[in-house]
Amino acid sequence: MAGFRVFLVVFTVCVVCVLTECKYMVYNTSQGIVPGKINVHLVPHTHDDVGWLKTVDQYYVGSNNSIQGACVQNVLDSLIPALLADKNRKFVYVEQAFFQRWWRQQSEAMKKTVQMLVSSGQLELINGGWCMHDEAATHYIDMIDQTTLGHKYIKEQFNVTPRIGWQIDPFGHSAVQAYLLGAEVGFDALYFGRIDYQDRAKRRDEKRLEVIWQGSKSHGSSSQIFAGAFYAGNYEPPTGFYFEVNDDSPVVQDDINLFDYNVQERVNDFVAAAFSQANVTRSNHVMWTMGTDFKYQYAETWFRNMDKLIHYVNQDGRVNALYSTPSLYTDAKYALNESWPLKTDDYFPYADRINAYWTGYFTSRPAIKGYVRMMSGYYLAARQLEFFRGRSKSGPTTDSLADALAIAQHHDAVTGTEKQHVANDYAKRLSIGYKECPLLNISYCPASEVDLSLGKKLVVLVYNSLGWKRTAVVRIPVINDNVNVKDSTGKLITSQLLPIVNASIAKRKFYTSAYMGESPSTGPMYWLAFTAVVPPLGFSTYVISSGKPAASASIKPKSYVFDGSQTGAIEIGPGNLKLIYSGDDGKLTQYTNSRSLVNISLEQSYTYYSGDDGSKDLQDLQASGAYIFRPNGTFPIQSEGKIPLTVFRGPLFDEVHQMINSWIYQITRVYKEKEHAEIEFVVGPIPIDDGIGKEIVTQIKTNIGNNKTFYTDSNGRDFLERIRDYRADWDLQVNQPIAGNYYPINLGIYIKDKNTELSVLVDRSVGGSSITDGEVEIMLHRRLLHDDGRGVAEALNETVCVRDTCSGLTVQGKYYLRLDPLGEGSKWRRSFGQEIYSPFLLAFTEQDDKWTNFPRPTFSAMDPSYTLPDNVAIITLQELEDGTVLLRLAHLYEVGEDKDLSVMATVELKRVFPNKKINKVKEMSLSANQERAEMERKRLSWKVEGSNAKQETVSKGGPVDPVKLAVELAPMEMRTFIIDFNSNLVQY
Amino acid sequence: MAGFRVFLVVFTVCVVCVLTECKYMVYNTSQGIVPGKINVHLVPHTHDDVGWLKTVDQYYVGSNNSIQGACVQNVLDSLIPALLADKNRKFVYVEQAFFQRWWRQQSEAMKKTVQMLVSSGQLELINGGWCMHDEAATHYIDMIDQTTLGHKYIKEQFNVTPRIGWQIDPFGHSAVQAYLLGAEVGFDALYFGRIDYQDRAKRRDEKRLEVIWQGSKSHGSSSQIFAGAFYAGNYEPPTGFYFEVNDDSPVVQDDINLFDYNVQERVNDFVAAAFSQANVTRSNHVMWTMGTDFKYQYAETWFRNMDKLIHYVNQDGRVNALYSTPSLYTDAKYALNESWPLKTDDYFPYADRINAYWTGYFTSRPAIKGYVRMMSGYYLAARQLEFFRGRSKSGPTTDSLADALAIAQHHDAVTGTEKQHVANDYAKRLSIGYKECPLLNISYCPASEVDLSLGKKLVVLVYNSLGWKRTAVVRIPVINDNVNVKDSTGKLITSQLLPIVNASIAKRKFYTSAYMGESPSTGPMYWLAFTAVVPPLGFSTYVISSGKPAASASIKPKSYVFDGSQTGAIEIGPGNLKLIYSGDDGKLTQYTNSRSLVNISLEQSYTYYSGDDGSKDLQDLQASGAYIFRPNGTFPIQSEGKIPLTVFRGPLFDEVHQMINSWIYQITRVYKEKEHAEIEFVVGPIPIDDGIGKEIVTQIKTNIGNNKTFYTDSNGRDFLERIRDYRADWDLQVNQPIAGNYYPINLGIYIKDKNTELSVLVDRSVGGSSITDGEVEIMLHRRLLHDDGRGVAEALNETVCVRDTCSGLTVQGKYYLRLDPLGEGSKWRRSFGQEIYSPFLLAFTEQDDKWTNFPRPTFSAMDPSYTLPDNVAIITLQELEDGTVLLRLAHLYEVGEDKDLSVMATVELKRVFPNKKINKVKEMSLSANQERAEMERKRLSWKVEGSNAKQETVSKGGPVDPVKLAVELAPMEMRTFIIDFNSNLVQY
Repeated sequence: MAGFRVFLVVFTVCVVCVLTECKYMVYNTSQGIVPGKINVHLVPHTHDDVGWLKTVDQYYVGSNNSIQGACVQNVLDSLIPALLADKNRKFVYVEQAFFQRWWRQQSEAMKKTVQMLVSSGQLELINGGWCMHDEAATHYIDMIDQTTLGHKYIKEQFNVTPRIGWQIDPFGHSAVQAYLLGAEVGFDALYFGRIDYQDRAKRRDEKRLEVIWQGSKSHGSSSQIFAGAFYAGNYEPPTGFYFEVNDDSPVVQDDINLFDYNVQERVNDFVAAAFSQANVTRSNHVMWTMGTDFKYQYAETWFRNMDKLIHYVNQDGRVNALYSTPSLYTDAKYALNESWPLKTDDYFPYADRINAYWTGYFTSRPAIKGYVRMMSGYYLAARQLEFFRGRSKSGPTTDSLADALAIAQHHDAVTGTEKQHVANDYAKRLSIGYKECPLLNISYCPASEVDLSLGKKLVVLVYNSLGWKRTAVVRIPVINDNVNVKDSTGKLITSQLLPIVNASIAKRKFYTSAYMGESPSTGPMYWLAFTAVVPPLGFSTYVISSGKPAASASIKPKSYVFDGSQTGAIEIGPGNLKLIYSGDDGKLTQYTNSRSLVNISLEQSYTYYSGDDGSKDLQDLQASGAYIFRPNGTFPIQSEGKIPLTVFRGPLFDEVHQMINSWIYQITRVYKEKEHAEIEFVVGPIPIDDGIGKEIVTQIKTNIGNNKTFYTDSNGRDFLERIRDYRADWDLQVNQPIAGNYYPINLGIYIKDKNTELSVLVDRSVGGSSITDGEVEIMLHRRLLHDDGRGVAEALNETVCVRDTCSGLTVQGKYYLRLDPLGEGSKWRRSFGQEIYSPFLLAFTEQDDKWTNFPRPTFSAMDPSYTLPDNVAIITLQELEDGTVLLRLAHLYEVGEDKDLSVMATVELKRVFPNKKINKVKEMSLSANQERAEMERKRLSWKVEGSNAKQETVSKGGPVDPVKLAVELAPMEMRTFIIDFNSNLVQY
Repeated sequence: MAGFRVFLVVFTVCVVCVLTECKYMVYNTSQGIVPGKINVHLVPHTHDDVGWLKTVDQYYVGSNNSIQGACVQNVLDSLIPALLADKNRKFVYVEQAFFQRWWRQQSEAMKKTVQMLVSSGQLELINGGWCMHDEAATHYIDMIDQTTLGHKYIKEQFNVTPRIGWQIDPFGHSAVQAYLLGAEVGFDALYFGRIDYQDRAKRRDEKRLEVIWQGSKSHGSSSQIFAGAFYAGNYEPPTGFYFEVNDDSPVVQDDINLFDYNVQERVNDFVAAAFSQANVTRSNHVMWTMGTDFKYQYAETWFRNMDKLIHYVNQDGRVNALYSTPSLYTDAKYALNESWPLKTDDYFPYADRINAYWTGYFTSRPAIKGYVRMMSGYYLAARQLEFFRGRSKSGPTTDSLADALAIAQHHDAVTGTEKQHVANDYAKRLSIGYKECPLLNISYCPASEVDLSLGKKLVVLVYNSLGWKRTAVVRIPVINDNVNVKDSTGKLITSQLLPIVNASIAKRKFYTSAYMGESPSTGPMYWLAFTAVVPPLGFSTYVISSGKPAASASIKPKSYVFDGSQTGAIEIGPGNLKLIYSGDDGKLTQYTNSRSLVNISLEQSYTYYSGDDGSKDLQDLQASGAYIFRPNGTFPIQSEGKIPLTVFRGPLFDEVHQMINSWIYQITRVYKEKEHAEIEFVVGPIPIDDGIGKEIVTQIKTNIGNNKTFYTDSNGRDFLERIRDYRADWDLQVNQPIAGNYYPINLGIYIKDKNTELSVLVDRSVGGSSITDGEVEIMLHRRLLHDDGRGVAEALNETVCVRDTCSGLTVQGKYYLRLDPLGEGSKWRRSFGQEIYSPFLLAFTEQDDKWTNFPRPTFSAMDPSYTLPDNVAIITLQELEDGTVLLRLAHLYEVGEDKDLSVMATVELKRVFPNKKINKVKEMSLSANQERAEMERKRLSWKVEGSNAKQETVSKGGPVDPVKLAVELAPMEMRTFIIDFNSNLVQY
């Protein structure tokens, strides 16, 4: 049969290829760290913006996918089985706003599974705030609150405390983030993606991307943190290692039965990328952030490929790949016991490339920024009130406001870098928490607009959330002109009544129609002002009634028209402070204080920058937009003619009204009892009929010789020195002499020379600078016509519409300025800054026949003979679900800031809570998720290159004696306590 | 304390909104059918093309996602946990090429889980072939093979048989699909998406989308099937109910704690869509195909939303929603015991809108179509050889060719509607199965190109896979001109040697360089032809050696140039058939057969249609493309001058060579022993320098008065009557008088009048028609410059490149024509058609000194005295893994087709397998996955509207007597057996 065999040999040439039976493949993913090799820490993560192109809920449920395909529910739903499939797989999750939405929907069995995964370390909750807050446009109190909110849930549900700060996307990084929201919440490290491109280049060259960051001058090394800027300036995987559903990175094809087997090729890619990163990284540990925005929609796609990479890369052996987390990575770095470069100050401003300074967002959407700040102060006060009343188990609580405010701290929320519909969503959430007088900001407040001529009386309750007694003028809109004000003892007090100007009434009508859907038939005609005096943590009441003749001083305006008829300067101010306006043209010329003897020439004006449309340079198509400030020209705003001054002089304060042009209106107030000027601006609609976007700044000019140096706050807390056209960390290549010198301002900005300080305080987050010596400027509003190419895909062109008629959004706000002799400015900046943050809270009720008098005319929670020290504020006073109380106290001064107040302060808790019995006081970490002592015990002790930090002495308050219950606070110290009261002694 | 309470009332207005704690939600998805309501059967499915824009493996692993985001591994990986999460959830999976790739990779535990899901009915495997084969460009043998391959795995792994035909995407539907691949594989129903838009409109109006389809005239109601065309003409969910990751249909948002709660809105949408579909559907059951191409990448996204819809829609109560499968839907329809409309014939051609006839793909990529057909015949023969040898347990088998061929039947493979790189992939897969002489088709065959002048001998083994003895001319390329041929007895036989024309040699060089990377230094110069006589299922050998003087008749060409010098006609043909060419211009004029006395004028020419570029009508931007044939003009192809005839006359056959123009070369062969003309065409590169795509047809013109009527085969099996500009099922609105009359041809096309039949048989799938009476045309090649907008996103512009030089692809092929007296054509069409499908298979070996003679010169597997009846073919003869043998026998004639052969035939199995002992013969369903009797027992008995089908008698072969082992086959009957041989009696 040989012949036939030959024949078959011939014929079976055709059938040589047979699919080998392939067995189920088990990948070895158990690899740990291998000393002596480059260890590539694969950190699977998703970055889930708490609102940006879609709203937070749209992102959660995955609706509105035509804008962006993103569904956080998918991420978490698909993650759990992926982790269960291989115990070596790991994942970090960050944003608790999303995580808690998901958690609520899970079965008990699933919750147990997730608890097991967290407990085993497979799923690690890092950062752990409600959102990944911004670091420029946020106030430190909001940062603390939103972090505390997230950490609380994590602690309750999993009994863990996040170890890692993970601020991977915010657009620059603040000192407060590093020391306060980093070290002080017990984080072992802080990681982020975005630092200036020039800075990053140098740090890569010098292997200084990873540093020890001491963000606080006052705290020094006691609040330092290991801080790593990512290699590539983002938080994404190396090119070619994206494994999301539908991503086009090559998947690892290791099935030899299929075409395009590519294991060696992919291993080579991996090794090359690892070496590339290792070349600019200290030590042989590198981290790969395996994920990006809203990835892991189907988590298995990532893990499937990472499993294979770990398996085959380790078979290859040139580098070592492992599943890791930032915690494990940090531990690996720490275990090396090396010294790291020191970093102080902050990472602002941020440019991601030439001419692309992310300093526009410091001011973008100023109305939202104002709303957030207003709600922030309100929330602080509301929690105090909730505590006094006793937190309701079933009824309304401050929780929804907490949620809304926490969401609003997201780095695409208060930043103004979200789409318009998302901005609307944030505002809607805030408004749900704040139902009363929602448009008070533009003089719409029905509660106070009672027609008192009908015999009704209006009770005004004025609440002071500060720990100090406080005296300030209150202004409320009223309908009648024949009114008087009595204090709670029934004594008539001084009040003044100013007519509301026509422009303001028209604006009110338009905005009321736009936002309320209807315009009120009658509106207030007057501002009634009186001085309220309120005890700490307490209220006073005032009764407003019709009185004939009116007891209020009814102020008539006096107009100055500069046609030559006016001779001599115009002096404004009923008290020590006088502002002098020129008799020639009505411009502000002089600031003089008869007490402090400061007497200085002062100008104040408006300027706009034309927003670059990105077209002038084909190599650099960068427009000014929501993120980026790129001015294309500076244009002083000239009034159409000379500006008439309209002056209202009264017993409590003087007002100067100036119509700067058809879209800028300004009121300057000088109070009898205050030594600062309050400037209320109404800016908008910014005209764009010339096709040019504009960014409006106000400039305050003096002859102070500040030598390029100015000071801006870090999230409203520490002041940092800024030097124009200079960076401490590298030789700055100056391409944008304006935008590149802008810094975020949440509290204020000041300049000084050897004699004088000029301070400007703000009522919301803004951007500002000192572009020329003697000058301070802050950006008030922006309206731009081009998207700046960072993803939001909308021009920052806010409008307000009534029916089909839209016009640019008008913004109303205030800033405050004061001049002091050198060294005396901080008292005002700190104490009045606190008052700006926590204004009097007003409530109204009509008094009818049943109440001849308001039942409880005044109240203070504190011992009547006690007040907090001038250098301490209550940052948090909040009853928790379990009846314990969260108390945060903050020293307001930095070391050396004020000659009197930069000292140790003491708060006597017994006198703060005179009516309650304090059972126990536990000092906690800043986010209150662990005891302070425990946190300090676990704190990693990093070594700083070339420093002998041990010699440094940092002053801190001592332990709280359980009997004395006196809390010491050193400069800038913030202390957090959980207080257990004896609950049956509630006495309010 | 009343006062303080009042105060708190005032203040707590702000905190009304509290997130209600939301419990884990359990959805009620258990709903079954509710009589009296509209039942919406939600059928979760994915449609996974076995290659289209990406290759099959790229689709499986999810690579090349930049072209299309699609990964079948994701679908199946994510499906299993989704099904496990709720036992009411269901899914149907279709394409076994993908499913088996996945199955191989699974763990034993996972396999058990999947088996459980299949067993419980949660996961149903339907259709179940290796792919969802096309129905126009496929041969029935390939359809059977690829379906059998898939069904075999399903049976082995799950012990189930698919119940449903699910041809949801193919572009029109064939009669063979309905009766053979539907009823005869035991399907209870057949569902599909695409039927002509005019047809669908009428069927919707008349509620006739669902029918009883009797696809076979011969089988009538015995092979009928319930067949449903989908409501919307596609296989997608209703608008707004797409729930893939990142889809933008509104998700069901039912968490009252989040914004945008939309349950009622979505329920309303659902109910409206259900009513809309119910309005055009018989009975109160409607099916929603919940999925589309490559969906369920993360299956949970679909099920999550369907869970909610079922829950809330059923709470609403207006309609009833349930998880279902096509099987459950079919059962629900069947249970109604209603009568359904009757459908006969097929659903070709398909237009999805005006001017969009999907008749281009009948011819698109003719080279691939030819390759597939060649491999198909080869695979049939290879399995026979594998059986004779005994299937190897370890070595090479025909399995990879089975896989490649099965994949190539996909409705974007052999159709030519895939991207170019995917077409290359199909070809590569086929080439892996067929290693020998891969370019034989263009005369490149090293095995036969031995230089015999060196004293070597070449043994040619000629295998005949048919069940009949066969005599045919074999042509092989040789280098030497002094050769002779001896049969296996050593007898010199008649041979003829034709020089290979220069054009052919140049073409060979170019294509060899393009596909092999190098050009051979020497090439064959001659075609050596001789007549081989081969027994059934057997081979003969011939020895070619150098002989001086050469015994082969060396043919010298004679050229006729029509300059007036030629007088009188030119007669071609050494046998009964003569073709007469005009002495004036060399054109074919007459066909005359001295035996049959057919003598008829005959013209043959080429024409091109200019492909519409889609620009002429802005309302109807439809170009001619890979799918769609839309001619924009008809242009007869004129040669540049008069066409010279070059004639080769030999003892075995005459050849006429005509260079029609610079890119069409034609050789007409008339064999001494055959009564048909064989026309070999070489078409290409089709010129496009005028910017116009072209579609090339050949037209054969006679004076046959066919009265608009012609006949084309259904997948190479039944012939269907076609009437120009007419549809049996509706009043055709004729918009495309050419494209709308094109039909797929796999075997042939014929026309007839009362005297004569003209038959044209083809060597691959083509499109063709009879556009004017007396004429038959077939489209040979297409080159187009515009995409036709059906997703492939490439123009059908095939090129071949050597280095950077590309030119349009040249296609070489054959068709055959014959004229017969009326009623006598079918014998040739059927028997010679079978020879075209199963050509002689050649193998070569050099004979050196060791072998003075080839060891086994002839062979036949059958009893030497036996042959199959003329009307029966062996369609499959294949040894299975378990040693049993799969045998398929097919009667080749329809009822009434031939006066002699449309009768019951008998095959004596004992004489087919004389050397084996048959233990047992089991008759099986067509796909061999269940016993035939079991299939018939389960067959649903549908009622046809207005018919008394019981009176119809259908002739079928009787049971096989286990002793006689004689198989009867009635006209068109196909019978499938598993034969168990006594394995120790193998004798080959």
